[in-house]
Amino acid sequence: MANDANPAYFPYANNMIEEENQSDQKPLLKTIHRVDHGETMVQRIFEMIGHSKFFSDFTREEIERLAVFMQIYRAEVGQTIIQEGDVDDNLLLIVEGRVEITKTDSHGDRRPMTVVGPGATLGEMSMIDGEPRFATCIAVEETTFAVLSRDSMVRIIIEEPALGSKILIKLVTLLSQRLRATSSNLLQYLEN
Amino acid sequence: MANDANPAYFPYANNMIEEENQSDQKPLLKTIHRVDHGETMVQRIFEMIGHSKFFSDFTREEIERLAVFMQIYRAEVGQTIIQEGDVDDNLLLIVEGRVEITKTDSHGDRRPMTVVGPGATLGEMSMIDGEPRFATCIAVEETTFAVLSRDSMVRIIIEEPALGSKILIKLVTLLSQRLRATSSNLLQYLEN
Repeated sequence: MANDANPAYFPYANNMIEEENQSDQKPLLKTIHRVDHGETMVQRIFEMIGHSKFFSDFTREEIERLAVFMQIYRAEVGQTIIQEGDVDDNLLLIVEGRVEITKTDSHGDRRPMTVVGPGATLGEMSMIDGEPRFATCIAVEETTFAVLSRDSMVRIIIEEPALGSKILIKLVTLLSQRLRATSSNLLQYLEN
Repeated sequence: MANDANPAYFPYANNMIEEENQSDQKPLLKTIHRVDHGETMVQRIFEMIGHSKFFSDFTREEIERLAVFMQIYRAEVGQTIIQEGDVDDNLLLIVEGRVEITKTDSHGDRRPMTVVGPGATLGEMSMIDGEPRFATCIAVEETTFAVLSRDSMVRIIIEEPALGSKILIKLVTLLSQRLRATSSNLLQYLEN
């Protein structure tokens, strides 16, 4: 399927197309315990992500179709889920647990930015623009999360365009809201 | 066509569906001079937006199809193109000229944020999330810009899903890059 993916969708994604061996059955994350194996787990993924705010506008049938493209992982307390500066292209959706987001400041110190919980998405910027990870995400509780790779996202857009558009609109809405909040914060600092 | 639009694509867009009279032939902006009238102008729109960085990944044929959904306007020096707090849902692409972006601070003073020129997009946040305009945009030179309404965006997604996905990916990439830049700026202020 990956061979059908049109690199024009993601201009930076040429390297992805060459990774022919990467299938949904291959773990996306090497160092973190994968919970699901095989298609029998689709129902379980559906049950987990179906309650997430991210998918509140999605029908049950859409979530089931999407679940086929996702994998579920569980991280232990203290485990790094995303490492700042790394190049990887997975979108993560937290199902259970809590994750602290930190970023290295100009003095090399790691600064806590926020803690997020179930329903939060992580890594959508890198999935979309292919740039290195902006921040580090560490599980501060045992955390279960669903993973959608950029490869799967391209396949959804090509094979299920209506579902693909819906996810893209959700992502662009999410980024837009974050940009408003961050810009407002920045403006407050500029005023002082 | 607008009647075919599925409101599920944009959860906030129910009011849009009721505006049955709004067609591409009706001006999107009331106070600004519209340059194009009718389909004979599609080629001119194509020529203008075809050179924009925003569409650098688009084929000629894709830009021509998109041009059908856009309108071209020209603003005089000093004319307000977007008013902070207004609720409207157009995406603007600057073709020629320069636009100053200002935002009202907590003391009610208008603060200049930046000046943008040809190739820049304005208003993509409101087009996507339906929230009021975040900032005011004023032409500081005579400015020509192309306008894509949310209504047209929904139509493109439904009638031309591949083209729709490509625009959405472009938007999400743009927002992602801006969010990275704004977050980095904010972090620098937080450090001091």
